[in-house]
Amino acid sequence: MTQKIRGVLSPVITPFTEDLRPHRVRYLRHCRWLIAQGVGLAVFGTNSEANSLAVSEKRELLDFLLDAGLPASRMMPGTGSCSLTDAVELTRHALARGCESVLMLPPFYYKGVADDGLFAYFSEVIQQVASPTLKIYLYHIPPVSQVPINHRLIERLLKAYPGNIAGVKDSSGDWNHTRALLKDFQPHGFDVFAGSETFLLQTMQHGGAGCISATANVNPAAILDLFLNWEAPDAGARQAELDQVRAEFSKFSMIPALKSAIAVFQKEPAWARVRPPLVPLSGDQARTLEGALRRMHFELGAFEEAA
Amino acid sequence: MTQKIRGVLSPVITPFTEDLRPHRVRYLRHCRWLIAQGVGLAVFGTNSEANSLAVSEKRELLDFLLDAGLPASRMMPGTGSCSLTDAVELTRHALARGCESVLMLPPFYYKGVADDGLFAYFSEVIQQVASPTLKIYLYHIPPVSQVPINHRLIERLLKAYPGNIAGVKDSSGDWNHTRALLKDFQPHGFDVFAGSETFLLQTMQHGGAGCISATANVNPAAILDLFLNWEAPDAGARQAELDQVRAEFSKFSMIPALKSAIAVFQKEPAWARVRPPLVPLSGDQARTLEGALRRMHFELGAFEEAA
Repeated sequence: MTQKIRGVLSPVITPFTEDLRPHRVRYLRHCRWLIAQGVGLAVFGTNSEANSLAVSEKRELLDFLLDAGLPASRMMPGTGSCSLTDAVELTRHALARGCESVLMLPPFYYKGVADDGLFAYFSEVIQQVASPTLKIYLYHIPPVSQVPINHRLIERLLKAYPGNIAGVKDSSGDWNHTRALLKDFQPHGFDVFAGSETFLLQTMQHGGAGCISATANVNPAAILDLFLNWEAPDAGARQAELDQVRAEFSKFSMIPALKSAIAVFQKEPAWARVRPPLVPLSGDQARTLEGALRRMHFELGAFEEAA
Repeated sequence: MTQKIRGVLSPVITPFTEDLRPHRVRYLRHCRWLIAQGVGLAVFGTNSEANSLAVSEKRELLDFLLDAGLPASRMMPGTGSCSLTDAVELTRHALARGCESVLMLPPFYYKGVADDGLFAYFSEVIQQVASPTLKIYLYHIPPVSQVPINHRLIERLLKAYPGNIAGVKDSSGDWNHTRALLKDFQPHGFDVFAGSETFLLQTMQHGGAGCISATANVNPAAILDLFLNWEAPDAGARQAELDQVRAEFSKFSMIPALKSAIAVFQKEPAWARVRPPLVPLSGDQARTLEGALRRMHFELGAFEEAA
């Protein structure tokens, strides 16, 4: 059995060409830079605009990264979908290409569905994929999906598929919820990742596995630093610094803000593109964010150096 | 320019095989029966579990119906998707096969998106599909999608694409909202369909185009009858009868209830299957629904006779 992923992962943002296709060259550069900074690649997450892509586009992007030599062992592709068929196809493909860890949204079109239905969905994926090496990380993000993954469901899934249910990304934004997951499930080897670095120090203090955070796209080294040094005397101060950076991004819609920062600091305006229904930051917003980041001496470094 | 669809359409429920693939033979029989009853086919709607299917499955089902001789002019396939790529692909395919009318959900993963983003999404679909014969019906179903299509957005779309923006299905469940749409947009040739037969009589009295309703899967003739005779003296009584039938289904989760009724009245238990995350009615629920329907002398007739 391969080692489970721990640490800091970035839900990798997806650059687009002028006609809104994924921009492979920019994507690869960004992914190489992230790996060089020491963070893993949670490609096809919420921040990746993954649900705005077709399954075929995700397959191609994954193939492209792996063919370029990026390590499957450092990836946790998002493969959950409203469509059981799509979830099975993308999970199978990820696994066939060596990515054993996948992050799965629940099906999110129907609201108020019964636990039995969500259990049946994950069961079907696991049974159809039928691989002992598959590690599913459940993606709890009720503010967006509107479909929670509750404690009872996790218990049932863990009991039925102890080898395949590997952990959770908790993007509830509620520390009490994350703490309860850490208390109830982490001792059983079910890895709890905080959904943002806001809760990274607390998550580590309670035995968690790390964080998967939007801002790891732009501030990976500092976030990783706290993960590696969470027991250091200055860990609280490091956490406060991370919080300050995140606070500037959180003043805007997160995904366009991340892309805007990369567009500015990499001097590649095209990075600012998003797929509808998202909209890029306005010129004023982009300048406000840039000003705030420059005042705190924020730097990205050049992506090219890593590529 | 071909005539616009009016009347009653059924968001066709999708039967599944034991391994949860679409069951083509049952599907075709049901669609033929619906056409024989005089209602149109809004395939791939909410009640079709369409978001639980892959685009490839929807393409194949549409091809199968058309190859079997069902009329494209009586179809309004659902082609909206979170993924711009998927929406364009399925809309293009429908159009290539002669289906000019499509029902489009807004992209529904991200919540609280700006009107500008939704406008950009529909604009992109229209521009990429680039067909003067494309007729888009906007699908407003905030209780499920959580992403509304508001009046301002409709105004902007109508102004920018008067030839392609054809109407709306209003599944808000709020008659005041439907009435406002009828008042503001129907006079400009923008067709308003009620999202259920509950509001069919009122919709017709205010100049609307008909309804697209879940229960048209099981009660098509009576619903059509009201559409055809909404000016008759007994229209109110007909509406009340429709409401009684719908009320029995509404006591349960609608999609499993529709399938359960067909399973029972067609004597094909396999019709009860749903794809996760939905769950079928329990045995008790199915019997309660059956009892209520039998007490009101509900009948389906045999699908085979139409096939």
